[in-house]
Amino acid sequence: MTDTNTTPSTETKEQIVTPWEVEASAGGVDYDKLVNQFGSTRISEELIARFERVTGKKAHHFLRRGIFFSHRDLKEILDHHEAGKKWYLYTGRGPSSGSLHFGHLLPFLFTKYLQDAFNVPLVVQMTNDEKFLWKGITIEESIEYTHNNVKDIIALGFDVQKTFIFSNLDYIQYLYPNAIKISRCVNLNQIKNIFGFQDSDAVGKFTFPPIQAAPCFPDSFPHIFDPKDPEIKAVRCLIPCAIDQDPYFRMTRDVAQRLGYNKPSLIHSKFFPALQGHNTKMSASDLNSAVYLSDTPQQVKDKIKKHAFSGGGATKEDQEKYGANLSVDITYEYLTFLLEDDDQLKEIAEKYSTGKMLTGEIKQILIDIMVKIIARHKEARSKVTDEVLNSFMSIRKLNF
Amino acid sequence: MTDTNTTPSTETKEQIVTPWEVEASAGGVDYDKLVNQFGSTRISEELIARFERVTGKKAHHFLRRGIFFSHRDLKEILDHHEAGKKWYLYTGRGPSSGSLHFGHLLPFLFTKYLQDAFNVPLVVQMTNDEKFLWKGITIEESIEYTHNNVKDIIALGFDVQKTFIFSNLDYIQYLYPNAIKISRCVNLNQIKNIFGFQDSDAVGKFTFPPIQAAPCFPDSFPHIFDPKDPEIKAVRCLIPCAIDQDPYFRMTRDVAQRLGYNKPSLIHSKFFPALQGHNTKMSASDLNSAVYLSDTPQQVKDKIKKHAFSGGGATKEDQEKYGANLSVDITYEYLTFLLEDDDQLKEIAEKYSTGKMLTGEIKQILIDIMVKIIARHKEARSKVTDEVLNSFMSIRKLNF
Repeated sequence: MTDTNTTPSTETKEQIVTPWEVEASAGGVDYDKLVNQFGSTRISEELIARFERVTGKKAHHFLRRGIFFSHRDLKEILDHHEAGKKWYLYTGRGPSSGSLHFGHLLPFLFTKYLQDAFNVPLVVQMTNDEKFLWKGITIEESIEYTHNNVKDIIALGFDVQKTFIFSNLDYIQYLYPNAIKISRCVNLNQIKNIFGFQDSDAVGKFTFPPIQAAPCFPDSFPHIFDPKDPEIKAVRCLIPCAIDQDPYFRMTRDVAQRLGYNKPSLIHSKFFPALQGHNTKMSASDLNSAVYLSDTPQQVKDKIKKHAFSGGGATKEDQEKYGANLSVDITYEYLTFLLEDDDQLKEIAEKYSTGKMLTGEIKQILIDIMVKIIARHKEARSKVTDEVLNSFMSIRKLNF
Repeated sequence: MTDTNTTPSTETKEQIVTPWEVEASAGGVDYDKLVNQFGSTRISEELIARFERVTGKKAHHFLRRGIFFSHRDLKEILDHHEAGKKWYLYTGRGPSSGSLHFGHLLPFLFTKYLQDAFNVPLVVQMTNDEKFLWKGITIEESIEYTHNNVKDIIALGFDVQKTFIFSNLDYIQYLYPNAIKISRCVNLNQIKNIFGFQDSDAVGKFTFPPIQAAPCFPDSFPHIFDPKDPEIKAVRCLIPCAIDQDPYFRMTRDVAQRLGYNKPSLIHSKFFPALQGHNTKMSASDLNSAVYLSDTPQQVKDKIKKHAFSGGGATKEDQEKYGANLSVDITYEYLTFLLEDDDQLKEIAEKYSTGKMLTGEIKQILIDIMVKIIARHKEARSKVTDEVLNSFMSIRKLNF
């Protein structure tokens, strides 16, 4: 039996994946196609094994389950790390109103794992300028969103000794020299080809990509990497991000060596799908597509029960007879993201796909996990005062 | 008799006036055409008379002689001033290597006169980012040029109590909010139409105009205009500049009211022509086109004698018989810029045009004036220490 009446459209359409839009056919995003189109590389079993050797730890379940599935020059980061050379993590977020949702957690949870596993500095860019340029909000709203989102990010447990969070409106003076170096190397044709902007678009859109590119270069952070170090430009950068952000860094990689830097490395995640199905990502623009870290237990229950697209049988009898189609089941997919225990996940998969578990039951498992994560998050976030926020966002030396 | 062999081409061509290029026919820039094309207004005798009434002083010879010849909304500034309301002056410079030349002096000398006459704050933008983007120089060179040029500007006698000089690389964090507000309102088609950029141009060029526009809005200067003042957005801005800079401010004026500001007012100067003739402006890119504030008396003499295009007779006899054509004579034109005494200028014009003065004589008068200005400038500049430079460029309250 299914709790939802909405069926994703089955017509085939061209998938669209840009930093501002993810639209795929009902079968979900075709990640193989994306890897081919973008020219990145699938993460192999060998690379995961190497990851485990270098870190001395079991690989994160996001890696083991192919949620972080694609990369560029990840091997170079591992080589660099083994050689005892400096590198850092760079990720970011376009601040949105209200609380983060579960889709936003993906890159941050994985980034935290990387920071802990490698003990390297992390810089987090809050693109409040981008949100101002793309959405009809005021500068003041973009700043308010930034502070709210940063508090959510801090509550995920980042180490203040190793983490610098900055917003573009606050930190632009440090990014600007590298942004104009990049923007002198990239012409408008290239920007149009990479990002699909039109002549009718605001010029601000064209000017933004170099700002997101600038943190890939270590001398954008003179308080973290000593500008007097003759080797500063050799410091490497690894960017964990959803694959829709790749265009920015393709552009950056094209110009990096001309400017004397290493190409930034990337590790790409799949999207956290919307409750309604695989054809788009969880979006802060559609409240019913997402479960928020601020939702009450009742809201979580209602959203999962009502909106999470089910691959289970249409009736109890059908489910018991045919089992569930896991490949379209959103509840099951969410569990692959959120349930760390491999054995438990495997057991659920087996029972649910063979009809020994009903849709209501698997949904309840997910609801319980989400409610627990949210409770833990709310508790942690309540301790993130303005003072804590300022400590993460202040320009200072890091310890690593 | 003429000291120069170079004759400007007489073929008629389309005149080109952009912030990066000034090219006109041999007859010089057609300023009437430019006023029509740009949609600005000629400064009338009535407006000059009003200027004198409001300031209680004789109008500057740049105004009397039509060197500052065109404007936009200058009347609004005078009304605003008479009503005791706040306004400020904004001018700027793209830093170049070496010293300033006489062409660079024009807007600054006039700006100083305005500052003294009206007792208003002045902000001076050094567009070192622009120079980095347009020229093949490094960030470090653009900063070095800035400091050298700022010392020359300070030596012209600006009042540190009323003057804030900033470079974009230093001050970008204060300009950025207004720059992105502007860049959200202007689309790429508009930028292309106004500035003539192509898709093959570096994207950095497209990002620059909003940076030059941002200082037109008073809240780009929170240390000068109290951000808590509910009337801050009503503060007006007057921009003295050469007319080639008008495109930036046409763009700014188009968006100002949508963003809640007054349109910036402008007062435009003609160009200081190159030694070789009226068809282009004095340019730092061609050493022989310009007399520098760092030139020795011998260099000044050689440049004027050898390169200043003459409207005098080809021989002593011709000059005595026919007199000089003042309208193409560069030496005479320079005197209209540099010789304040109206009676003396009138006498020179009469004698030279009727053949009672030879080319060598008028050139000697100009040489003497330029050598004297340079000597005075060198003396003043020797007192502009790094400390003085820092005091003009530091972010601080002004007194006005």
